[in-house]
Amino acid sequence: MKRIAVLTSGGDAPGMNAAIRAILDQGMHHGLEVYGIFHGYKGLVEGDFRLLTVKEVHHRLKTGGTLLYSARYPEFAQAEIQQLALQQLKKHQIEGLIVIGGDGSFQGALALNKLGFPAIGIPGTIDNDIPGTEYTIGFDSAVTVALDAIDKISDTAASHERTFVVEVMGRSAGDIAIWAGVAAGADAIIIPEEGFEMTEIVERVRSGRRSGRDHSLIILAEGVMKVDEFVTRYTTIAQEQDVRGIALSHIQRGGAPTARDRVFAQLMGAKAVDNLINGLSGIYMGIIQERLATFDIVETLKKKDKSIREDLYQLNYELTDRDL
Amino acid sequence: MKRIAVLTSGGDAPGMNAAIRAILDQGMHHGLEVYGIFHGYKGLVEGDFRLLTVKEVHHRLKTGGTLLYSARYPEFAQAEIQQLALQQLKKHQIEGLIVIGGDGSFQGALALNKLGFPAIGIPGTIDNDIPGTEYTIGFDSAVTVALDAIDKISDTAASHERTFVVEVMGRSAGDIAIWAGVAAGADAIIIPEEGFEMTEIVERVRSGRRSGRDHSLIILAEGVMKVDEFVTRYTTIAQEQDVRGIALSHIQRGGAPTARDRVFAQLMGAKAVDNLINGLSGIYMGIIQERLATFDIVETLKKKDKSIREDLYQLNYELTDRDL
Amino acid sequence: MKRIAVLTSGGDAPGMNAAIRAILDQGMHHGLEVYGIFHGYKGLVEGDFRLLTVKEVHHRLKTGGTLLYSARYPEFAQAEIQQLALQQLKKHQIEGLIVIGGDGSFQGALALNKLGFPAIGIPGTIDNDIPGTEYTIGFDSAVTVALDAIDKISDTAASHERTFVVEVMGRSAGDIAIWAGVAAGADAIIIPEEGFEMTEIVERVRSGRRSGRDHSLIILAEGVMKVDEFVTRYTTIAQEQDVRGIALSHIQRGGAPTARDRVFAQLMGAKAVDNLINGLSGIYMGIIQERLATFDIVETLKKKDKSIREDLYQLNYELTDRDL
Amino acid sequence: MKRIAVLTSGGDAPGMNAAIRAILDQGMHHGLEVYGIFHGYKGLVEGDFRLLTVKEVHHRLKTGGTLLYSARYPEFAQAEIQQLALQQLKKHQIEGLIVIGGDGSFQGALALNKLGFPAIGIPGTIDNDIPGTEYTIGFDSAVTVALDAIDKISDTAASHERTFVVEVMGRSAGDIAIWAGVAAGADAIIIPEEGFEMTEIVERVRSGRRSGRDHSLIILAEGVMKVDEFVTRYTTIAQEQDVRGIALSHIQRGGAPTARDRVFAQLMGAKAVDNLINGLSGIYMGIIQERLATFDIVETLKKKDKSIREDLYQLNYELTDRDL
Repeated sequence: MKRIAVLTSGGDAPGMNAAIRAILDQGMHHGLEVYGIFHGYKGLVEGDFRLLTVKEVHHRLKTGGTLLYSARYPEFAQAEIQQLALQQLKKHQIEGLIVIGGDGSFQGALALNKLGFPAIGIPGTIDNDIPGTEYTIGFDSAVTVALDAIDKISDTAASHERTFVVEVMGRSAGDIAIWAGVAAGADAIIIPEEGFEMTEIVERVRSGRRSGRDHSLIILAEGVMKVDEFVTRYTTIAQEQDVRGIALSHIQRGGAPTARDRVFAQLMGAKAVDNLINGLSGIYMGIIQERLATFDIVETLKKKDKSIREDLYQLNYELTDRDL
Repeated sequence: MKRIAVLTSGGDAPGMNAAIRAILDQGMHHGLEVYGIFHGYKGLVEGDFRLLTVKEVHHRLKTGGTLLYSARYPEFAQAEIQQLALQQLKKHQIEGLIVIGGDGSFQGALALNKLGFPAIGIPGTIDNDIPGTEYTIGFDSAVTVALDAIDKISDTAASHERTFVVEVMGRSAGDIAIWAGVAAGADAIIIPEEGFEMTEIVERVRSGRRSGRDHSLIILAEGVMKVDEFVTRYTTIAQEQDVRGIALSHIQRGGAPTARDRVFAQLMGAKAVDNLINGLSGIYMGIIQERLATFDIVETLKKKDKSIREDLYQLNYELTDRDL
Repeated sequence: MKRIAVLTSGGDAPGMNAAIRAILDQGMHHGLEVYGIFHGYKGLVEGDFRLLTVKEVHHRLKTGGTLLYSARYPEFAQAEIQQLALQQLKKHQIEGLIVIGGDGSFQGALALNKLGFPAIGIPGTIDNDIPGTEYTIGFDSAVTVALDAIDKISDTAASHERTFVVEVMGRSAGDIAIWAGVAAGADAIIIPEEGFEMTEIVERVRSGRRSGRDHSLIILAEGVMKVDEFVTRYTTIAQEQDVRGIALSHIQRGGAPTARDRVFAQLMGAKAVDNLINGLSGIYMGIIQERLATFDIVETLKKKDKSIREDLYQLNYELTDRDL
Repeated sequence: MKRIAVLTSGGDAPGMNAAIRAILDQGMHHGLEVYGIFHGYKGLVEGDFRLLTVKEVHHRLKTGGTLLYSARYPEFAQAEIQQLALQQLKKHQIEGLIVIGGDGSFQGALALNKLGFPAIGIPGTIDNDIPGTEYTIGFDSAVTVALDAIDKISDTAASHERTFVVEVMGRSAGDIAIWAGVAAGADAIIIPEEGFEMTEIVERVRSGRRSGRDHSLIILAEGVMKVDEFVTRYTTIAQEQDVRGIALSHIQRGGAPTARDRVFAQLMGAKAVDNLINGLSGIYMGIIQERLATFDIVETLKKKDKSIREDLYQLNYELTDRDL
């Protein structure tokens, strides 16, 4: 093997650049040339390839986003489009591909694998919603940004003794909400995985105030409902004035990746190179219980096992459940 | 003079606690007792007074919000309510009052002054919209938070080569938008003080892309219109897909105050104490051209003179105006 | 059980306040009164006890340090001193004690346990050097602060194409060095657990420059040697001008705790309360493979098993090993 | 005028990249080509020139350091070396030069000016020690980083009720010490511009403790003495155990530039281009009382007038002077 390539696909996530750095450096360690494919699968099909240099990549290790750019490209599901991709890979003499992205991005890698081209996935998505792995690149950074914002909101909430509802990212996974919510000491956390009773949320907030809290925080995963709708429904029951809603939105995708995201991104990136060299394909990298693991892409539809999320959800419940 | 008091009123702003710290310490320096009045004018009327201690105040120097809590209290415009306040001040043997807040808060101080009670204002509002002074407590922190968020957004904007419209605070004043926008290298900045042509904004974004920019940023002050409306109007003309809007909202009020906010807050706080001791009243503290200044509250309706905001607006215009 | 108490001992660590918050709230959840013992074991012996309130504790969830203050107190090894502590605990009707601190602090808990008083430990130390548990409160925050500082140093290093040696905390454990070093893309990481050859370090830096890096970073755990000594020895061999050394020192102990530190601190804090209620004693809480675990204090001298540190050390080695 | 160039020289400072961005964009606004000269005056003499692109420059607006690299090059004082520089400028058809750097860097610009080549300076140094201008690029960022570090140190100082002495940058100017020290609520600030009595410093710390402070902070500008020496002298008099010293060192040079640094850097950068076009030379840009100003380089040896530094020094004195 003499030349491999890497692309990023789907939503960007802090730490993707760290993975790219490790792929480049581990490639060099093994004497490989490492190409970047720009603009995701679209660039793969259109031939947007270029040899990566240490200089451009190392400076980006500590930055958010992806230096390779990303794009959504549903056309890649078509067989003839996949053939075009194969032609481009051959033309550039690429012998293995690493795809950094989410669940959907892995399907492209799997398609190439079925066509006989070696391809490996690395989970990069802030939502932490990829089955199998307990960890995805960008999740820790997204939690960090969300928590930082919630801390700021709690300053003003406390000054006015208000209740704030903060909508964080997470369409189908409540992980960001759970982690940021527990870390912030939220009065309630609402996630897609669990139902909720508004009357119980209201009571929880009230018991917090009775216990001495001077403000209240409710963390809402976007997958449940929009924050404005939640605030309307909440105030109908709570009859509390001055409840404010805020959606953190895209700021959660940006910023310098945390140490944890950079470390695991590099660990998975380097190992993906090793695995390509060792002839593996159709797999993706992951972390289980703080150690490297690999998974077959075909298995990605399997549901994640019981995770720490459930422990933390329970923790929040107990910490804010008071008989007063 | 043996005992003075301080209250915060209106929207909270990072640096208010630094002003309180300086009022306490400068009071102690002059041998005065310094009382905190909690919950703004409401607490003033209801007698929510307490002697402040170094321990509780010093720890809060570096935190956002206000340790004295704040509240809106329009009832204070009523003469009988003002009399209740006077009674409370007398009951607690307070001889002078410092009010930290915005324009409206100063009117309460002015009312007390007219009733013969010494009162001085300190401008505390993130909007920087108080006439006379070029600086208000919290403004630099709000710009810092807004810029940090915009930087994060630019990471994801660049990864997807998108245009983002970011709504920042500022009902009547575009200062946060101007400072954060210029600092972020925005393609356009829309503020209440200036009109705008959507076609020109679109052209500005396009010329930026032609010059080599890989993403675009438009900063919108909330006083102009809501970000969703702006995005709708923008995309109608631009016919650009995937334009995203985000409102930073309340995160701009929070966070540790910047050095600048803590320094000027303390400078104004300490000098307000000196001024009370020297028998001044009915004035508010301010900064003009980086030096302490004082203003009569009755003059606060006078419009601010030409400020650096106009220079910066022009700067942004030139930097993003390209013949390509 | 009606009343429990908590103290912090040894070096402070970000996240200790989050543990205290969870102990208070979980105690309230179970209908217990929770006392704070101030100034560590010294306060325990001298009777520095006070009922904790939600108001004082909740505001500190997001701050570094310990609201209970800490102090070193070697006198607690004496039997008569321990008896004084027992008397104070009885006098205040405390029925169980939680000690947040490091290895040494746990010995005090063990001593009380041997005297029949229920006591449980929670690992709080930035060094991550407690046997058994893979995680200690404050470690993630310390890595975050160290990485942030190294990122800043890399800005100036790159501008002048210099080599910087950065000394981070870690007397006997290289974990902070490893995590921050890998995250920062360091050219070499020197830790107490592994030997090193200066000639090899120099060669590693040189090969990095040949590969295109415009600056170099060496991360040194304090337990190996002082940074000034390292720089002197390095430059003797490297004959490189302008190598700079910097010791990050105490800034690594401070700052707002990260989400991870706050989450695990609360998880361990809440569970410690449950364990006290369930009659357990002489144990300490910990995290193994991202899940709660408990350990007997007597076992704390047992060496930690192979940890991810070794994987990461190897990762750094490979990523910076280039044949050029 | 068709082509201009820019270089950075001396110590790097956050915000230099923002100045470069404005020079490029303002140049494009006026239809000029803008060249970067890499590695300061050394690159000028050796012909290290390259046309700058929007893409490389815009991404660096928000990063610390200088994308043009910097280097010290005392050889530029020699007349024959200056001639080589002139030849390079002519060879590359450069018609005007902008130099971003400190006092020494301006001397090079002045030398070129005397040889008939148009050159303008922009003050870029974290020390804020350039006569005339009240503001230099990087100063606000350096204060911000220093304050952030001091805040972290105060967490651990408070937890152990310790006194910390923090050495910040500033060989001849105490501005960083004054701003960061006042912002942090330091008990004492020691700067080169003012003498100090150790006994008085000790008394100041003691009176702070008597007033209720739970820790003490002394901020020391590096130009006064090294922190270790200060701690030794302090403890001799104070007989206080456990006093810790820390030198913040190079972290103060790095990090994302603050809004203020980016705004003024761009204002000065854009105006420097305008001035070159208007035929000005031998001057440098600056800020007086928050407005753009220009100065003759020959005047740079003139001492700065009374600045806000003196007001702030006095403020700190009063706030920490208590009769207890």
